[in-house]
Amino acid sequence: MTDPLNAVTEKEKGHDLPDSPRSVGWTRPERALLADEDTPLPLDCGENLYPVTVEFETYGKLSAAKDNAVFILHALSGDAHAAGWDAEWEKHKRPWRKDRPGWWDEMIGPGKAFDASRYFVVCANLLGSCYGTTGPWETNPRTGKPYGLDFPVVTVEDWVRLHVRLQDYLGIEKFLAVAGGSLGGQQALAWAINYPDRIRSAVIMAASARIGAQGLAFNAVGREAILSDPCFHEGQYYQHEPPRCGLELARMLGHITYLSQRSMEGKFGRRFQNGTEPGYRLNKEFCVESYLEHQGRSFVQRFDANSYLYLTRAMDYYDAAGTGSGLEAACSAIKARLLLMSFSSDWLYPPEDTREVAKAMLANKKPVSYIEIPSDYGHDAFLLEADQTSPLVASFLGRCD
Amino acid sequence: MTDPLNAVTEKEKGHDLPDSPRSVGWTRPERALLADEDTPLPLDCGENLYPVTVEFETYGKLSAAKDNAVFILHALSGDAHAAGWDAEWEKHKRPWRKDRPGWWDEMIGPGKAFDASRYFVVCANLLGSCYGTTGPWETNPRTGKPYGLDFPVVTVEDWVRLHVRLQDYLGIEKFLAVAGGSLGGQQALAWAINYPDRIRSAVIMAASARIGAQGLAFNAVGREAILSDPCFHEGQYYQHEPPRCGLELARMLGHITYLSQRSMEGKFGRRFQNGTEPGYRLNKEFCVESYLEHQGRSFVQRFDANSYLYLTRAMDYYDAAGTGSGLEAACSAIKARLLLMSFSSDWLYPPEDTREVAKAMLANKKPVSYIEIPSDYGHDAFLLEADQTSPLVASFLGRCD
Repeated sequence: MTDPLNAVTEKEKGHDLPDSPRSVGWTRPERALLADEDTPLPLDCGENLYPVTVEFETYGKLSAAKDNAVFILHALSGDAHAAGWDAEWEKHKRPWRKDRPGWWDEMIGPGKAFDASRYFVVCANLLGSCYGTTGPWETNPRTGKPYGLDFPVVTVEDWVRLHVRLQDYLGIEKFLAVAGGSLGGQQALAWAINYPDRIRSAVIMAASARIGAQGLAFNAVGREAILSDPCFHEGQYYQHEPPRCGLELARMLGHITYLSQRSMEGKFGRRFQNGTEPGYRLNKEFCVESYLEHQGRSFVQRFDANSYLYLTRAMDYYDAAGTGSGLEAACSAIKARLLLMSFSSDWLYPPEDTREVAKAMLANKKPVSYIEIPSDYGHDAFLLEADQTSPLVASFLGRCD
Repeated sequence: MTDPLNAVTEKEKGHDLPDSPRSVGWTRPERALLADEDTPLPLDCGENLYPVTVEFETYGKLSAAKDNAVFILHALSGDAHAAGWDAEWEKHKRPWRKDRPGWWDEMIGPGKAFDASRYFVVCANLLGSCYGTTGPWETNPRTGKPYGLDFPVVTVEDWVRLHVRLQDYLGIEKFLAVAGGSLGGQQALAWAINYPDRIRSAVIMAASARIGAQGLAFNAVGREAILSDPCFHEGQYYQHEPPRCGLELARMLGHITYLSQRSMEGKFGRRFQNGTEPGYRLNKEFCVESYLEHQGRSFVQRFDANSYLYLTRAMDYYDAAGTGSGLEAACSAIKARLLLMSFSSDWLYPPEDTREVAKAMLANKKPVSYIEIPSDYGHDAFLLEADQTSPLVASFLGRCD
């Protein structure tokens, strides 16, 4: 969900450079074909999709017993490049990776929460995204043109189903842990419920069993901005101008929901961009306006509008309680230990919603730890509060070992 | 700010029909020319605007002593038609008024909070709006074409300056009270600070000294949606298609901020529009999506995109503290009694921000009543909680009499 680029802007932290002992160093994306004509991927919508390629990265070494693998799950705007420095950013035309490490570099590396000297860390790009895994940008072999809106609507459960194939491909029977924040946290919960025998634990941050009506509403407005952009051309814009304005608007709006009221107040307040006297302009006056515009503009350089539609829709549809017997019944299937973390100022996935999952686990007498981390960073906190979350994650993983 | 049409949808209350003893009955808009070449209206931006016409309505009778006039201040999407039934909706091509009374009909009428059998109630459309008062839709006599973006940026203080002229035009030295919610509440506060001798009291609902960074951000995204709509044509769209998509998006987004998380949850939750099984569609699936779309679509039938730009900008700029010595100093000028009302679930103008005004009044030893009304309706509560607010307003006005 949150943009690693923003996160860095926010915290303005020094990075661990590739030669730092705490960095996983230079990384190279790998790709695996995980569904072909003989083994199509069944999707919740009823379609059977093939071919499906997944881009992933790994850090650290898989143990001989193959019992030290941790699977990192990315959020809306993330990718498989979770840590270290991309040695192939030029080859894959990803200039935004040049000066920054992976999106969760503060959490992944030797001596960090997801200790790459101890664990084999894997991260894979999501189906429908735009960073190497099959998505609407890819050529549909049936038509010879990009999928666009012919791409099937995918769900969080579809992602997990695909990633279990990646797990098999890597020869890992059980992940020591799956871990993610926001939409990544929803995936972690789906792993725990749908594949109880394939994981030993799950770290779920800034996420809950489902997004509420307000979250659905924000996503709907963001998608509408893209769909109504005249450059959208029913999703077949790859030969033309992409729907920049629509995606920019969607990102600006999304970004507001990732920050807390208090952090926006502290960071921008009502300050003017230039001077202290009003310029009596309809735009480009307040600092917060130019900040949002910058966020929007940089996002369209690196993200695909169709992917934005598909990934937000998956977020909408996810409901751990299913349409059936409720969250408590759903959690009865879980065998993994759960670590749930919410952030006090997160209003997209508010703490009370995360607590609901903890309660459902307790009602089932399942092992769960829940902590609400005090933070002013809002939803973005799962990227920005590494100092607070790292020791908790490290200690939890140590106990799951 | 809030749409009276939504409010009615929300509450689904029975209306007082024109012949009801509690209705002000049939109403007719009036217009007054309040600035011409000899008496241009000086604006904060430095321009001197003329001609300026103001549309207004009045209910009840002005007393011989002219001491019973109450001035009602409308919010973003409001108009001068605050109560009763518009006898001239056909003449002025305002079909949306056909089946509904004025936007604050629950508060204005014989026996109601603003008791039209006792008070002379006046309401005027804002400068820059699109309901009869001069705005960007009007022909600029200098160019012979609509103002569009040539219209000057106006402020809350400009509105009050103009409405003081209306007060003079009506021959009223002092309003018994000025009253409004949201952007209307900001005007009421501006009256109290800038024209202390022209009012005896002010009722300020769901408003504060200024909007915060998050509010600025939402307004910025809404305006950006309009400005980037290809139909916008730099504001000169009156001869063509208006920027419907942009205005619709702005309204959808705005609407989210008028409701509370809890009211959205209660009203829509995650319910599908059709049935209980997911349709795996990118839009038009959840009830909240079609609701927002409906709100957006009906809004573009009755509102002007340029007016949306100008009125939200005025909201942005307003800061009762000015750029100078702060809110306490600003409030030292006030001579009126203030009634401040906030609503517990309002996150656009949160209660703590309204309290700040109350504290500034107390620090000046000025008469102020503050009450936080418990409500799940969010910002919209100032339109929807008439049952709770009416007795408080009535009793306050009675004491100011």
